[in-house]
Amino acid sequence: MHDGFATLPAPPYYAVISSSRRRDGGGDDGYDATSARMLELVRQQPGFLGAESTRGIDGFGITVAYFESEEAIAAWRNQPEHADARARGRNEWYEHFELRVAKVERAYGMRHGTPA
Amino acid sequence: MHDGFATLPAPPYYAVISSSRRRDGGGDDGYDATSARMLELVRQQPGFLGAESTRGIDGFGITVAYFESEEAIAAWRNQPEHADARARGRNEWYEHFELRVAKVERAYGMRHGTPA
Repeated sequence: MHDGFATLPAPPYYAVISSSRRRDGGGDDGYDATSARMLELVRQQPGFLGAESTRGIDGFGITVAYFESEEAIAAWRNQPEHADARARGRNEWYEHFELRVAKVERAYGMRHGTPA
Repeated sequence: MHDGFATLPAPPYYAVISSSRRRDGGGDDGYDATSARMLELVRQQPGFLGAESTRGIDGFGITVAYFESEEAIAAWRNQPEHADARARGRNEWYEHFELRVAKVERAYGMRHGTPA
């Protein structure tokens, strides 16, 4: 995710918007390693286009993952290692989690120096 | 935005997904005051449903604002004080900015203790 931005084709495509609040945990609960592994895995997923993710110091985070199609989203959802990680998220890591699936209809960008 | 999560009706509705990287500025450049003012204003905008926003210590941030309709998004885009703020964002505050408009088709959530 280099500079944080996903490089995406022209719309339409799909966005999976996840917002979450981490539990007050403290210590290494495996979250960071699993997040890195999920990013590695999703990049191998057919139809995955890119992702953007950030979390504030208050523990509230947003990740948006972009896919070519609903079929690609469903395949990623059913990927076994990802399904296990989602269960750990629900049971161990997240206090609150919201997921919204949306179809991106238009997009534009601006980058200083060059039009994005 | 209390605990960070927007409380939204059942889909369909629209999401405006903005990702941005702040310029290396330092000092008070008016960004925080304008952000707070924009949140105050958008809450008064007809068709605004809620927003979620976070920024990491690396300066990369994601805000997702939810609206009832494309018409509500267009009205907010054309709100004069917001249009001025967007221009300052492009010219002063952001090194890179991407905006995607999407129609949310389905959503679910999980909150510990109670189903969200």
